[in-house]
Amino acid sequence: MTFSKKTKTMIPKGVATLLREGTFQRREIEKEILSTFNSWGYQEVTPPLFEYLDIFSLGVEEEALDSAYKFVDRATGRIMVLRPDVTPQIARIAATLLSDQARPLRLCYSANVFRHEAENAGRERELLQIGGELIGPSDAEADAEMIVLTIEILRRIGLKSFRITLGQMEFTRGILSPFNTSPAFFKEIRHHVAKKEASALEKCLKREAVDAKTRKQVLSLLDLLGGEAVFRRAEGLSENPACQAGLQRLKDVYAILKTYGYQDDLLIDLGEVRGFDYYTGTIFEIFAEGFGSELGGGGRYDRLLKKFGKPAPSTGFALYIDRIQSALDKVSPNKNAHTWVDFFVLHQSDTIQTAVTLSAELRSAGFRVIRKNGFKNDKIAMYREEARSQKIKHIILFVEGDPKNRLALIDPVTGNKQIQNMENTLEWLRLNTVS
Amino acid sequence: MTFSKKTKTMIPKGVATLLREGTFQRREIEKEILSTFNSWGYQEVTPPLFEYLDIFSLGVEEEALDSAYKFVDRATGRIMVLRPDVTPQIARIAATLLSDQARPLRLCYSANVFRHEAENAGRERELLQIGGELIGPSDAEADAEMIVLTIEILRRIGLKSFRITLGQMEFTRGILSPFNTSPAFFKEIRHHVAKKEASALEKCLKREAVDAKTRKQVLSLLDLLGGEAVFRRAEGLSENPACQAGLQRLKDVYAILKTYGYQDDLLIDLGEVRGFDYYTGTIFEIFAEGFGSELGGGGRYDRLLKKFGKPAPSTGFALYIDRIQSALDKVSPNKNAHTWVDFFVLHQSDTIQTAVTLSAELRSAGFRVIRKNGFKNDKIAMYREEARSQKIKHIILFVEGDPKNRLALIDPVTGNKQIQNMENTLEWLRLNTVS
Repeated sequence: MTFSKKTKTMIPKGVATLLREGTFQRREIEKEILSTFNSWGYQEVTPPLFEYLDIFSLGVEEEALDSAYKFVDRATGRIMVLRPDVTPQIARIAATLLSDQARPLRLCYSANVFRHEAENAGRERELLQIGGELIGPSDAEADAEMIVLTIEILRRIGLKSFRITLGQMEFTRGILSPFNTSPAFFKEIRHHVAKKEASALEKCLKREAVDAKTRKQVLSLLDLLGGEAVFRRAEGLSENPACQAGLQRLKDVYAILKTYGYQDDLLIDLGEVRGFDYYTGTIFEIFAEGFGSELGGGGRYDRLLKKFGKPAPSTGFALYIDRIQSALDKVSPNKNAHTWVDFFVLHQSDTIQTAVTLSAELRSAGFRVIRKNGFKNDKIAMYREEARSQKIKHIILFVEGDPKNRLALIDPVTGNKQIQNMENTLEWLRLNTVS
Repeated sequence: MTFSKKTKTMIPKGVATLLREGTFQRREIEKEILSTFNSWGYQEVTPPLFEYLDIFSLGVEEEALDSAYKFVDRATGRIMVLRPDVTPQIARIAATLLSDQARPLRLCYSANVFRHEAENAGRERELLQIGGELIGPSDAEADAEMIVLTIEILRRIGLKSFRITLGQMEFTRGILSPFNTSPAFFKEIRHHVAKKEASALEKCLKREAVDAKTRKQVLSLLDLLGGEAVFRRAEGLSENPACQAGLQRLKDVYAILKTYGYQDDLLIDLGEVRGFDYYTGTIFEIFAEGFGSELGGGGRYDRLLKKFGKPAPSTGFALYIDRIQSALDKVSPNKNAHTWVDFFVLHQSDTIQTAVTLSAELRSAGFRVIRKNGFKNDKIAMYREEARSQKIKHIILFVEGDPKNRLALIDPVTGNKQIQNMENTLEWLRLNTVS
């Protein structure tokens, strides 16, 4: 059976196929991120791609599970899930496999996540997330470390225009606590706060006859957005001890971030309610100029590890690499500029030994080399074309029938040729091919 | 809901969770392999994790599909498969997305594959394969390139005792061609040849009254195993042109491998019938001393790309990284020896700015640093213990109340202490912490 183009699409929409340039860029980004994590004392772990649904669901909100890929495990009959998120896996690993290891644990990962999407939604079903988790410390320094790491990573991978929004779940939850007893109404309020819909929010607060003071507090959430001045505006808003503690914590975190000189990258947003049921303290999201969706985010989740049997305060974040690649493409779209190969070593069968040795020496010296036997002198135009199409920088040719076994170095684009004896070849090639 | 240990296992058996040391080792291996591929002119691509079953099945044997994970795609109702193999994906990519790109294509990948296994089989369900494919050339140099690359990779990742078995599908298929008309009998013969069961093979050949000459040829397959001398023994065996051509090809490949000086790593095995329906020419498998299963393998598969609409001669190979890690652990089990962090910078709140700056400088200089605020002088024993448990090499301490802001460098194991002024700190740390 052979594929016929007329019948069906070959590749599911929204799955991630990265070709050469995309993979090259992804590897560079991954290398920078993991090495930044490493320089901060984080070690990478590798979670499995699928888990038992009943275990995984302990650590993730229902929404995420709804769109997850599930299948029945043949061996046990239990339902498996392709991970829609990585943090619950790291939490499980920390609470079980690494339960006897000293805290703090500084762990990082690079892992694909999966979710069902309607075929024409234009959204990806397979996404790479790279992130880190700091398990053990509960202090402001730990919260700040996540944000500093994020900023240093974004700078190292070349993203210049970005903004981190800072929220505080204790504070926001404190303000919204009067509505705890009425889930439906609470959900409505949360929705309007999330969308920053002031008039709709006011309307529904009045409809339910919420007292003036509480109304003012809730409506204020929408305006507590901006620089350091937000702290002063938020200070007198509520006497709720949770609000006071949350605000103090965010001030402490902000003070540490100022030590790093990062205040200009920050935007305080006390109306941030993302992950309301999951996060417990300082939270943040990453935005880039001219890019609608967030590029990543994270925050404190002190209640998660308890679900796997070993409680610990924790904070962490993840970067959405597919979106970051898109954002970088907008900033510098010249990613096709690099070459793939340094030398195209052409020779005939009688010089194979010399060509093999030279190619090996060049590779050991860090060059990328393709060796090709069967060279014919009248086909040089064809080889130049091949070198150009394969993004090869230089052609090396063994001069045919030459008693001195000399080399020619040819530029595939211009055809320029230099001749050299075989002595000190490597040194000569280094000198003549500096890019 | 919280997990209770009594009820169920948390992690499916046979899924790949790698902790810190395992992931570190895997990354090192991956880096070496991909950089070797790169130095030979190969570029990495990233295939999707799942594909449509009907498309994927074009390129893979039924057996592999039987044990693959399958699920229904919500968006289209079509059946998806978690890839049980990567080569069919690369073939599809080469034949479709890269169909307009110049040949040869040199592509490589690092990708997990999946298969159902009985829960107690002790085999992995999620396995990392790293491999390469050379699409376009049909010559002996291309066949040899696969094997040379394999050997160079194995050497670079530190595997010393290994053996490559070389087979030739054209030759073997030629010898077995008299049985093409009788599938059941053919299968029986193939089975005995694969297992090198001489007496069972002879018995069934006699049972079916196979003529003496053919019997001798088939039985010979079991003995055509060894060094270069095998070629002489195989030469007169059959006048079948396919056998002659196959043998000549393997001789040519062997001659190229001798140019590299790799003949001692090779074992010719003309009775190799692995992947009989799939491979079309030179094939090989990798074995390590004291390790039962093959660590990888590959060969020529000239008929695969045609199934995706754009025929091309092709050869390739894959390395099974989980097995390679196990084999390496047997050779050098001291993988826990390395440290995780270079410096543990301890300070109090009043020196946070200096500590932040010093930590940043150290990280820029390539060191791994954990900074910790809130140091208390009477707790140094506790911090030393923390440093040891976190595999930290050195403690840096800001000397408390010191008017000169001096630093102490402390060895977590011995407690040895050196004191230094803040000038030229970085230079001094470099000199005093050479590992």
